[in-house]
Amino acid sequence: MDECIFCKIVRGEIPSSIVLDTDKVIAFLDIRPVNKGHVLVVPKEHFETLLDGSENILRDMIVAAKKIGKSFRKALKADGFNLGMNNFAAAGQVVFHAHLHVIPRFENDGLQHWPGKTYDEGEIEQYKEKIATFL
Amino acid sequence: MDECIFCKIVRGEIPSSIVLDTDKVIAFLDIRPVNKGHVLVVPKEHFETLLDGSENILRDMIVAAKKIGKSFRKALKADGFNLGMNNFAAAGQVVFHAHLHVIPRFENDGLQHWPGKTYDEGEIEQYKEKIATFL
Repeated sequence: MDECIFCKIVRGEIPSSIVLDTDKVIAFLDIRPVNKGHVLVVPKEHFETLLDGSENILRDMIVAAKKIGKSFRKALKADGFNLGMNNFAAAGQVVFHAHLHVIPRFENDGLQHWPGKTYDEGEIEQYKEKIATFL
Repeated sequence: MDECIFCKIVRGEIPSSIVLDTDKVIAFLDIRPVNKGHVLVVPKEHFETLLDGSENILRDMIVAAKKIGKSFRKALKADGFNLGMNNFAAAGQVVFHAHLHVIPRFENDGLQHWPGKTYDEGEIEQYKEKIATFL
């Protein structure tokens, strides 16, 4: 994809701080990190969201994320880490080339998770039926 | 694991709203959903975090998450969806049996993403070097 910023990074046309470079994926530092050290795992082939990725490339992406998380523990003395993937604009996707966020976390780093809602009586079963219908 | 709540769900000892059940993973509705329909993808074998999962089970988990996301688009008319995985307590992990969150998203649903920080001059390269050392 000529104009895709992540494809340009994959091709080396835009500089980035690459930490991992394999046949199928690269991983580089997000320039606007949630916590410093925040890495993006990016497939070298262009596709937009999780829904467009083959089993093999999705495996390669999550395996790379595992390696990054393992490194965070040693390199940054991270107490934990989050994986995240935003699919489609409504979910916060900004670059439409699929990517996994790997975010180092530290005790009391102040990042708040989204609060939980509650289901009305019987409502959870309705959701279950709807979702299961398309699986 | 006798006392693990997700192992109990896998064994059918605790009821849950299961939407997907394969040889290796189950997926069920989170009872405290970020948005209604929020699903947890759980490996049947017990392990604690991403760091403990084999390549095969991680592939099975992300492939299941892809199926769930695809269903969200049809079943819930979701505009998008997030994947999330909290590894270790500092990252918000509450149940210490690894799981992927799959969260349906809707235009203007009000969920805010974590803000980005900035690196000082030269700092991003230091982080790159540290992380790459352990990869």
